[in-house]
Amino acid sequence: MGDLLGVAVLGAGHMGADHIRRLDRVVSGARVAAVADPDLDRAREAAAGLAGVSVHADPAAALDAPDVAAVLIASPGPAHEEALLAAFARGLPVLCEKPMVPDSTGALRIVEAEAGLGRRLAQIGFMRRYDAEYRRLKALLDGGGLGRPLMLHCTHRNVSSPAGFTSAMLINSSVSHEIDAARWLLGQELTAVTVLRPTASTGAPEGLADPQFVLFETERGALVDVEVFVNSGFGYQVRCEAVCEAGSARIGDDHTMVVTTRDGAREEVAQDYLVRFADAYDRELQAWVDAARRGEVTGPDVWDGYTASVVAEAGVRALETGRRVAVDLAPRPDLYTAVSR
Amino acid sequence: MGDLLGVAVLGAGHMGADHIRRLDRVVSGARVAAVADPDLDRAREAAAGLAGVSVHADPAAALDAPDVAAVLIASPGPAHEEALLAAFARGLPVLCEKPMVPDSTGALRIVEAEAGLGRRLAQIGFMRRYDAEYRRLKALLDGGGLGRPLMLHCTHRNVSSPAGFTSAMLINSSVSHEIDAARWLLGQELTAVTVLRPTASTGAPEGLADPQFVLFETERGALVDVEVFVNSGFGYQVRCEAVCEAGSARIGDDHTMVVTTRDGAREEVAQDYLVRFADAYDRELQAWVDAARRGEVTGPDVWDGYTASVVAEAGVRALETGRRVAVDLAPRPDLYTAVSR
Amino acid sequence: MGDLLGVAVLGAGHMGADHIRRLDRVVSGARVAAVADPDLDRAREAAAGLAGVSVHADPAAALDAPDVAAVLIASPGPAHEEALLAAFARGLPVLCEKPMVPDSTGALRIVEAEAGLGRRLAQIGFMRRYDAEYRRLKALLDGGGLGRPLMLHCTHRNVSSPAGFTSAMLINSSVSHEIDAARWLLGQELTAVTVLRPTASTGAPEGLADPQFVLFETERGALVDVEVFVNSGFGYQVRCEAVCEAGSARIGDDHTMVVTTRDGAREEVAQDYLVRFADAYDRELQAWVDAARRGEVTGPDVWDGYTASVVAEAGVRALETGRRVAVDLAPRPDLYTAVSR
Amino acid sequence: MGDLLGVAVLGAGHMGADHIRRLDRVVSGARVAAVADPDLDRAREAAAGLAGVSVHADPAAALDAPDVAAVLIASPGPAHEEALLAAFARGLPVLCEKPMVPDSTGALRIVEAEAGLGRRLAQIGFMRRYDAEYRRLKALLDGGGLGRPLMLHCTHRNVSSPAGFTSAMLINSSVSHEIDAARWLLGQELTAVTVLRPTASTGAPEGLADPQFVLFETERGALVDVEVFVNSGFGYQVRCEAVCEAGSARIGDDHTMVVTTRDGAREEVAQDYLVRFADAYDRELQAWVDAARRGEVTGPDVWDGYTASVVAEAGVRALETGRRVAVDLAPRPDLYTAVSR
Repeated sequence: MGDLLGVAVLGAGHMGADHIRRLDRVVSGARVAAVADPDLDRAREAAAGLAGVSVHADPAAALDAPDVAAVLIASPGPAHEEALLAAFARGLPVLCEKPMVPDSTGALRIVEAEAGLGRRLAQIGFMRRYDAEYRRLKALLDGGGLGRPLMLHCTHRNVSSPAGFTSAMLINSSVSHEIDAARWLLGQELTAVTVLRPTASTGAPEGLADPQFVLFETERGALVDVEVFVNSGFGYQVRCEAVCEAGSARIGDDHTMVVTTRDGAREEVAQDYLVRFADAYDRELQAWVDAARRGEVTGPDVWDGYTASVVAEAGVRALETGRRVAVDLAPRPDLYTAVSR
Repeated sequence: MGDLLGVAVLGAGHMGADHIRRLDRVVSGARVAAVADPDLDRAREAAAGLAGVSVHADPAAALDAPDVAAVLIASPGPAHEEALLAAFARGLPVLCEKPMVPDSTGALRIVEAEAGLGRRLAQIGFMRRYDAEYRRLKALLDGGGLGRPLMLHCTHRNVSSPAGFTSAMLINSSVSHEIDAARWLLGQELTAVTVLRPTASTGAPEGLADPQFVLFETERGALVDVEVFVNSGFGYQVRCEAVCEAGSARIGDDHTMVVTTRDGAREEVAQDYLVRFADAYDRELQAWVDAARRGEVTGPDVWDGYTASVVAEAGVRALETGRRVAVDLAPRPDLYTAVSR
Repeated sequence: MGDLLGVAVLGAGHMGADHIRRLDRVVSGARVAAVADPDLDRAREAAAGLAGVSVHADPAAALDAPDVAAVLIASPGPAHEEALLAAFARGLPVLCEKPMVPDSTGALRIVEAEAGLGRRLAQIGFMRRYDAEYRRLKALLDGGGLGRPLMLHCTHRNVSSPAGFTSAMLINSSVSHEIDAARWLLGQELTAVTVLRPTASTGAPEGLADPQFVLFETERGALVDVEVFVNSGFGYQVRCEAVCEAGSARIGDDHTMVVTTRDGAREEVAQDYLVRFADAYDRELQAWVDAARRGEVTGPDVWDGYTASVVAEAGVRALETGRRVAVDLAPRPDLYTAVSR
Repeated sequence: MGDLLGVAVLGAGHMGADHIRRLDRVVSGARVAAVADPDLDRAREAAAGLAGVSVHADPAAALDAPDVAAVLIASPGPAHEEALLAAFARGLPVLCEKPMVPDSTGALRIVEAEAGLGRRLAQIGFMRRYDAEYRRLKALLDGGGLGRPLMLHCTHRNVSSPAGFTSAMLINSSVSHEIDAARWLLGQELTAVTVLRPTASTGAPEGLADPQFVLFETERGALVDVEVFVNSGFGYQVRCEAVCEAGSARIGDDHTMVVTTRDGAREEVAQDYLVRFADAYDRELQAWVDAARRGEVTGPDVWDGYTASVVAEAGVRALETGRRVAVDLAPRPDLYTAVSR
């Protein structure tokens, strides 16, 4: 079938390999056409067993490989800017894992580059927008039956943080999901951020400010609070309660099987984001592939990626200073709506 | 990609069209190669927009079309036997929607035909085995931590029954899912069935015995009760509680979003099986395609299809007579394990 | 305060002692005036620390003690008939623990004796009618919003059965609560009973048919099923789901605190009926005392006590014979409504 | 029975009348001996039907009435200080509704007066400490199994606020419950408070800052956040989630009956604090009466009442200034532990 979308996957680490498997075994209408990783062995291993895949150390070579019609960027954040610009230069639709670009200055360059093209090519990997529960909440809020949203109460807990995780990363890696989700759910920009630091858990590595409690204000006066606790020890829990003028709605307390034993009634708690959001990743890639085959680009855009960088940087300053920090965005190019749907 | 599995889909009605969409847009590794329906217009409509698909009035012609390497039977039940035998004759792997064959005599002929081949070709469409919650419950029971299962309490409710639905169909169409699910969860054959008829709901069509309460006994003394209520008016609810020697486990009370308003705290209830089991259908087809591409056949087998027919027939007799009816199975060919996993 | 209701408590065992504590420490408007138990030491111990209480071996002497204006019967079942008749002879209001009288013949004599008086004196201890959840369900069903009830699915599980518990006692001791609750919730008599016996749990004592699955039919065609499992090992669970023409309602899945740890999200399960129904016992006694001080008798009546005996006897026969057994009631005296409210 | 505790009830308004009913009809071991209210008609009405009760316009006269052995203060807050001092002067045990004294200066005078007596006489009406769910959470935290508490996430919602409710009253009337509950659950003083004001709900009266989001810091670095929303429109919801080093626990999501209809699965939400906390009020009064009859005073003490005043005043300043306000407590007399149990 000549119409399968040939995808170059940049980065063959944990996330890249998972996306390769997904393109090969789960997603309809696409195939992996090229894999690039500076570690060629890793690239070869990720491509093993797939037919018609070329393997490269150089990302640019992968983009130019035969049958490549789209790019999936799963390399480390610092490599994203160059990869995005290379995709733009070739007119290739691209799905870029978050963070789009780690610093807001680089992120703004991406916004300007794509705006200069006059059309969208990039979709940013905020996959919560593809989660069934988040979509249900979004639909409920957009439907208007609960009235205007006043507050979002969010919880973001991991079992434990990976080695090298810093206090700033609770904001710019973990909470960056809530930054995008809050903007998307509310359809509003975040305008200020304050970070509170309870005494750190003894379950967290020495020196890590974990948990944190992050407060965002929005342009129309809503309040978003986020408990982020990456060494909770007990599970991967992502919850969100929207409190509106005419009611509230809560997602993330899913219980699919209740087991009652001598130890009480128990529900399983997901331990890993790849479990909790497996379906969201599948849907995200399928949506990207489907759109690319139609010649379209949909989903979170680079303005979303840029604002997430700016808000996260403000959050890190708020963490470091203990003060409320205002969010200062560059003017928004006409190509982008305020908050993409 | 020459290695996409070419599938002939027999039947282009509601279920057939949905499977065609699934093969085209959701499932990885397969494509629709032929569609057959006595109503050629319907076949053409279902195949519209797909490349490389031939359309046929005659199922046999579809099986012989170019690139056909597997068969999906979604035609009405009475056409299944002939279609299965045609697939067997050509050595094609086949996924057959339930009921495998409506009557147990015909079902037994399929068992004998496949057993005569000496290898499995057919997977029967008991898609609950691919539902995430059922799989979790199955894994829990197989794990042994709850001890021996003593009882299954099942609920099977629809909003309303389609036109022409008969009292017998509550057993041989609706409860047939529980018949297979109970056998699979318990790993035991059902040995007897009793049906109780509470006063019919005024919400049910005149003359329909709805709800019914069905009791199955198993070969090792477990009890399976099923409330089947196809005109409940309020939702599509499929629940199962397994009561074991060391605890109980319940699935089907999933709540993904709780909305609190002036009217109380409310959770959505699915209204349709295609919503509740959408993922299960996706996984079922993906598993079938993946196995076929490996040259294998897995999942529910024709012995499962046959026993479901026999038990359903006993159930209908129990409904009609008001008495306990024993289940009488033919000898099981060596090709099949007692209850497939 | 001369207007405190002086109560003679007959029986100073586990339940009697608990009621003495309740009258002394919890219930307003009553005091223990006399305690009777054949074991005088046990009676003295139960009365220890209370002022103005006389202690007796002979129940009749307790009824005649100073200040006794009401009787609470908590002695073993076989002593109930004589105690009830003695209370009737003295015109004393009486609260009688269940079973009212163990056999239906004796129970009928009580019905006839009270009917002969022409006024109610006895309240029977079916305390589930005073449980907040059951009352909510009763109010919902009586309100009519869910339409006519079609089925009740009931669960009655204990952690373990006391020594000497027989297979018949699962019916006439445990399920007797559901017998009364079902009559009360539905406002209908039970007309037939069938008992199924799954293979017994290895957690049950040798020879005990545990669990059992009991099916009641009602005079207007509703179906009541009860899982009774007195050696479940995991908790005291009493649940009831009413399935009606326009919806269903479920009680007994109360979760008041959800604790999430490394082991998942967990809710406590009550281990004991005195915990689960503590408030119901309190309310039952308060209602009885309040009515007695107003010169009234309310709550479950001796007709309820009698029918419970008859249905339980039919249930035991159904257990023993494996067959459906019809319920045969004596004519109901005019003093009683069909099912008391 | 001469040993019934004779109680003088000061204030015969809504709360006073409810407590009179409770002492008469619910609580064991006490009776209403005197009622005082400046509005003598209201006092007479509240005492109607009770025997042996004297009625007074002057609180002091009620305290000196025959048989008065304890005092329950349910008059408006500004009258509390004088009433407490009068009870202290007579050595009478007293239960004082919250707020103990509206301003912290007056509250401190009460602390000093009781400390000067050298023994406790007053119990303050923080009735959440007597709620079954809060007690379960307290026991869990004290048990230590979840490790050190890091955060409390609290919700306090009412359907609508009474006439005359001010923005400050969201703090010093509504949140005062959370102030005491947080101190009690954590066993720590609150040391600072910040108040955020999302855009007010259009469901709130013009000019009322509703909802508010209140953040408390504690002496050992825990964080307590409270959503207070007194015109939520949908219910009376009091929830608390304790996030600890080894797990979390949540109360207040109680669902006792799930009703499923065409509109989904629905749980009732309490509309009123007298419903949600009815049992807590009952237990509070019973505990007070039981202790008084033993010659003891237990429960929340005047130090708890004083700190609640100080923290609430800091909260109101935080609301007015938009800044973090530190809590400044007077030295604690030896009579009191840091946070009473």
